[in-house]
Amino acid sequence: MSFDQLSTTALFIGIAMALAVIAMLYAWVLNRKLLKIAVTHERIDEIGNYIYEGAMAFMRRQYRIIFYFAIVVATVLALTELIPTLRGSEGVGWRSAIAFLFGALFSGLAGWAGMITAIKANSRTAQAANEAGMPAALRVAFSGGSVMGLSVVGLSLFGLAGLFFTFYFLFGGNSGDPTTQYIAMVNAVHTVAGYGLGASLIALFSRVGGGIFTKAADVGADLVGKVEAGIPEDDARNPAVIADNVGDNVGDVAGLGSDLTESYIGSIISALTLGIYAFVHINPADILTGGVLITNEDFAGIMRSVLFPLMVAGAGVLAAILAVAFIRLRDWLRPQRALAISTYVAVAFTMLATLIFSLLMFEGLRAWGVFGAVGIGLLVGLAIGFIAEYYTSNDYKHVRDIAEQSTTGHATNIIAGFGVGMQSTFLSVVALVSGIVISYLLTGDMYGIALAAVGMLSTAGITISVDAYGPIADNAGGIAQMSHLDEDVRKVTDKLDSVGNTTAAIGKGFAIGSAALTSIGLFFAFEKAAGLSAVDILEPGVIVGVFLGGMLPFLFSSLVIKSVGRAASKMIEEVRRQFQADPGIMAGTSLPDYAACVDISTKAALKEMILPAMLAVFTPIIAGLTLGAQGLAGLLVGALVSSIMLAVFMANAGGAWDNAKKYIEEGHLGGKGSDAHKAAVTGDTVGDPFKDTAGPSLDILIKLMSIVSLIIVPVVISIEPLLHFLFK
Amino acid sequence: MSFDQLSTTALFIGIAMALAVIAMLYAWVLNRKLLKIAVTHERIDEIGNYIYEGAMAFMRRQYRIIFYFAIVVATVLALTELIPTLRGSEGVGWRSAIAFLFGALFSGLAGWAGMITAIKANSRTAQAANEAGMPAALRVAFSGGSVMGLSVVGLSLFGLAGLFFTFYFLFGGNSGDPTTQYIAMVNAVHTVAGYGLGASLIALFSRVGGGIFTKAADVGADLVGKVEAGIPEDDARNPAVIADNVGDNVGDVAGLGSDLTESYIGSIISALTLGIYAFVHINPADILTGGVLITNEDFAGIMRSVLFPLMVAGAGVLAAILAVAFIRLRDWLRPQRALAISTYVAVAFTMLATLIFSLLMFEGLRAWGVFGAVGIGLLVGLAIGFIAEYYTSNDYKHVRDIAEQSTTGHATNIIAGFGVGMQSTFLSVVALVSGIVISYLLTGDMYGIALAAVGMLSTAGITISVDAYGPIADNAGGIAQMSHLDEDVRKVTDKLDSVGNTTAAIGKGFAIGSAALTSIGLFFAFEKAAGLSAVDILEPGVIVGVFLGGMLPFLFSSLVIKSVGRAASKMIEEVRRQFQADPGIMAGTSLPDYAACVDISTKAALKEMILPAMLAVFTPIIAGLTLGAQGLAGLLVGALVSSIMLAVFMANAGGAWDNAKKYIEEGHLGGKGSDAHKAAVTGDTVGDPFKDTAGPSLDILIKLMSIVSLIIVPVVISIEPLLHFLFK
Repeated sequence: MSFDQLSTTALFIGIAMALAVIAMLYAWVLNRKLLKIAVTHERIDEIGNYIYEGAMAFMRRQYRIIFYFAIVVATVLALTELIPTLRGSEGVGWRSAIAFLFGALFSGLAGWAGMITAIKANSRTAQAANEAGMPAALRVAFSGGSVMGLSVVGLSLFGLAGLFFTFYFLFGGNSGDPTTQYIAMVNAVHTVAGYGLGASLIALFSRVGGGIFTKAADVGADLVGKVEAGIPEDDARNPAVIADNVGDNVGDVAGLGSDLTESYIGSIISALTLGIYAFVHINPADILTGGVLITNEDFAGIMRSVLFPLMVAGAGVLAAILAVAFIRLRDWLRPQRALAISTYVAVAFTMLATLIFSLLMFEGLRAWGVFGAVGIGLLVGLAIGFIAEYYTSNDYKHVRDIAEQSTTGHATNIIAGFGVGMQSTFLSVVALVSGIVISYLLTGDMYGIALAAVGMLSTAGITISVDAYGPIADNAGGIAQMSHLDEDVRKVTDKLDSVGNTTAAIGKGFAIGSAALTSIGLFFAFEKAAGLSAVDILEPGVIVGVFLGGMLPFLFSSLVIKSVGRAASKMIEEVRRQFQADPGIMAGTSLPDYAACVDISTKAALKEMILPAMLAVFTPIIAGLTLGAQGLAGLLVGALVSSIMLAVFMANAGGAWDNAKKYIEEGHLGGKGSDAHKAAVTGDTVGDPFKDTAGPSLDILIKLMSIVSLIIVPVVISIEPLLHFLFK
Repeated sequence: MSFDQLSTTALFIGIAMALAVIAMLYAWVLNRKLLKIAVTHERIDEIGNYIYEGAMAFMRRQYRIIFYFAIVVATVLALTELIPTLRGSEGVGWRSAIAFLFGALFSGLAGWAGMITAIKANSRTAQAANEAGMPAALRVAFSGGSVMGLSVVGLSLFGLAGLFFTFYFLFGGNSGDPTTQYIAMVNAVHTVAGYGLGASLIALFSRVGGGIFTKAADVGADLVGKVEAGIPEDDARNPAVIADNVGDNVGDVAGLGSDLTESYIGSIISALTLGIYAFVHINPADILTGGVLITNEDFAGIMRSVLFPLMVAGAGVLAAILAVAFIRLRDWLRPQRALAISTYVAVAFTMLATLIFSLLMFEGLRAWGVFGAVGIGLLVGLAIGFIAEYYTSNDYKHVRDIAEQSTTGHATNIIAGFGVGMQSTFLSVVALVSGIVISYLLTGDMYGIALAAVGMLSTAGITISVDAYGPIADNAGGIAQMSHLDEDVRKVTDKLDSVGNTTAAIGKGFAIGSAALTSIGLFFAFEKAAGLSAVDILEPGVIVGVFLGGMLPFLFSSLVIKSVGRAASKMIEEVRRQFQADPGIMAGTSLPDYAACVDISTKAALKEMILPAMLAVFTPIIAGLTLGAQGLAGLLVGALVSSIMLAVFMANAGGAWDNAKKYIEEGHLGGKGSDAHKAAVTGDTVGDPFKDTAGPSLDILIKLMSIVSLIIVPVVISIEPLLHFLFK
């Protein structure tokens, strides 16, 4: 690669962008095909439209707020250009602001397109189940999910690669002088961190806001509809039922999708940053200050390290396209099998393509080292998914234990679920830590850890497709119920849905694992960017940071959980009010005001997320300005440790409670209506905000804190000397 | 102090030991006075004897196992003498083994004496309430608690100071040469760390075993007696009622007492260790290797730093004696007032005496710095207690919120309690972190943090007295109930008991805060002893340690919680069996087999604690041997952060649920028997193992891990070079 650095770079970037474009085109084709299916069943169409309108009402209001937020953040980023001490240090300033806006725009677009398609797929899956049976319904549901998966990876990679190359070029990547080009690359990498912040903004709103929306609607619909009024789940007479269905899309499709998008982009950014430092015998600071010149050969090595993660991501995109196409080749009767095979096809192909890129770009042991690091990431992703399944599936003893403990009452059910959730942190952390250690040893530096994160997330295309499939199948079932379709149709959608529960648990585990690995990568990128050679726990500033950071996820979770409680109370009041104001609703003679319930969830979600969001954004800034870069590093480590433990605990406890209830509902230990079932319902209700709101929000917390820290590095470094008198 | 180092040292040590002897004598006098009261009421005597025999059965079996354990640990410690590389490095070896045995013996003696007195005080308090009313009953109950408090601080300080001086003398403290004397002091300090390990062994058994004992008995007695058989609490027909009362003594008196004893000794040991390093311009390693000689003046400064914590502890002992004597001076009608005043008297006197010692031993700003650090510790101890009260007392909004949320069901009660517990970490951590920062700034080094811990725990004498008072009052009420005493008597014991609930919440907060500060002190002592100049989070070995450490408390808690579940099931079976086998029990014509229930709790407690105990002891050893000193430091930090958060969360959530139930039982929101009450009972039951077993056990976990790490330093350092090839 030493003959012409710029054209080689352009070639590799071009490959990544071309693959991304193919993914987008394929997503567009799938979307067209899906929308071409006319919804001819009148009742399905009607219900489908309610959900569509409700979701759009929420999305429009959410995106309007995001728009204003984005303007403010971009302005602040651009204004840092004016601080005199920062002039010359790239990474903040108007270029970052532009990168940020692109990140928000592309993530937002992917989320928007994916959501619309998923919602349109709800009713079409129900209709396919009604008219053509399992294989057709599965095809529609999977296509709906695939559009989200392919759009996300396509748009994310396209924007990131394109922006990186543009900045590299503008900063002097065409100079022909390796030292200038190196500096251009460092500045380009630091600048595109803003792109990650844009994705984080979307993720914050989608995940935290969406999580509050969906649980407020869910609890409201259940408590008044099922418990007080005694009507079944997914009954069209329940005023909150549409809000509940909208919530499934908003929380599980858009929320999880944006979470993984943020991880996807974050992992690549951390690998780009650490790629610069992967050649340990060169001290970047010496080059940047002009003291040392870089050789052509060294620069080529660094360039390879920087470009490689983009190639791995490209391989993942191609793998996702192939996996989706492979599944569409034939008719599947067992959805479980189809989804599992799609994941294995994607993983196998990503490994193969990564191996080729490794051997092409690196020589000797280094090639196998980087390939191994990517592979370890993929394995850890699978392992964490399996661990989540082991603790939350009723095929295994843990969930059955909880079900058993439900026979002695509500309290023993809660204690048992608590125990299972806490215990599940053990294997999850062991898997994560093994991944960190092995990937580090394989490359000999932190770069390997970032590559493992990129490897884990290279399957984001197919993972998001599979995850988005779940709520589509779930909602198709709801629509079938509300449209009074045949019992047989309900059986098809139930079968589609049952797989969705497993994929949801695995998806949550994957989301946490990927958030953890991405945040660790971003953390190391932060310390490299801040020029920290060590973060000494023995410094009081650092230990204070660690303790405060460790406390944050607890405070954050309590805020989010309380938000759900408040929002749910409002929903309960509204549903009660509607039932009281118009007895025709219960009689089925007049329609409930679905929009009013959607509106309550929308307003609550957007209002209640402000405080937790502020906590996530401002804590690292305040810590950076008061405790300095070292203290901020301590804060990040503390937050990382607590968040991972709490997120794993909450997701698995919630999933286990959920399935313990389902296990009893299948007829075990007294079945539906027994005292054990009542206790299990309590566990499920407690678990809902754990697994669907607080737990997933913690994924966002750590990534957002890490990326904010990375972005504010130049500011923190400039201000730090002022603080030394206190803690040095 | 420069005229004659040895005699000055002897003088100060002598003062501390003399004060300790006075405390022990006073405890002995109080004990004699208490035992002189004859229990003349036949029924009270009978019930009292059942409890006494049950407790003795448990204590005997527990102490027998502790004895074997102690032999094994002492042998292992002594055998490290044989490892060639370790020869010459003091801190392990047969001297440590002796210190360890003394620590176990003295802590065990204090616990044993305190327990017997407390149990004897149970029935005597009930009798005093019956015969003489409030002031007399309060006097008996408070005396019972004071014996525990005074024995603990007296024996602990006497043993520690005596052992330290003996080793100092044996190592060459009488040589007259400051360098030799300095080395003697360093070795003496490192050797007496074994004394702390001895206290930790007792605490481990008393806190974890006691916690499992008490909750197994409590849940068993409640679920079968109250719920299934419909008999009231503290009904003599319930076979588990004696086990339940024994559990209160075992868990709350011996458990909490041993927890604070461990903190008390640990904090002094950490301050002794850091005292050696308090003179930053001298590098101890240079002196130990013989490269640098120490001046008489420098040595005098270091000696003052090492002796000062013993003087603060002595001040605390004297303060406790005065506070107890002050309370006994007059008759109190309001127990709340008496207990509060005793604490304030003790705090005020400790401050005064510490000020005198500070001005006597240090000059200029340094005197005010060390005094301030001790004072900050006292303040943080009070603050953490108040924060615990704020979140768990039904005088404030949080508990009322939980009560309010109980009206909508079991799940909302659980979620609300969960939210309150998590939120309470915020203020607690802020208080703790403020204490760390301010005490550090006041002395300019870690020594200040250790002094803050010593300051906080200098009130252990009175804190333990007040805490042990609670279960004595509680059990007096139970005995009054079982002995069918007058309604009026029950009112007196209820009033005595109601204060006990507040002191219990404050005591738990104090136990966590002191465990945290002690562990932090021990952690810094560990790194100084290991000669670590920095613990770099950016090292993979350290970050791996942090993650594994952060996970440990979750795993540990899940094990403990599951243990309680299993033990409670066995108890439930036994109580059911007895009711079925002999209908005369329910009719009141035949006596239940109380001993069988005590036996079940005893066996379960001792068996179920093995796995968590192994985890606490072996994890630091394994981490030290595989990850080295740096990785072990990471493990300790991770465990510290997670443990503090979880312990605060569990203690406060549990306390809040408990008082929310009591608030409803007072007649609010529907009162006893309402649906809200049922939901609140669920919360209380969930909270029981949180606040009385898992939460407090975490206090032990972090202290035990820290002291084990401190002890194994010589081994870890010898082995570390072997591991460098992996992570360096």
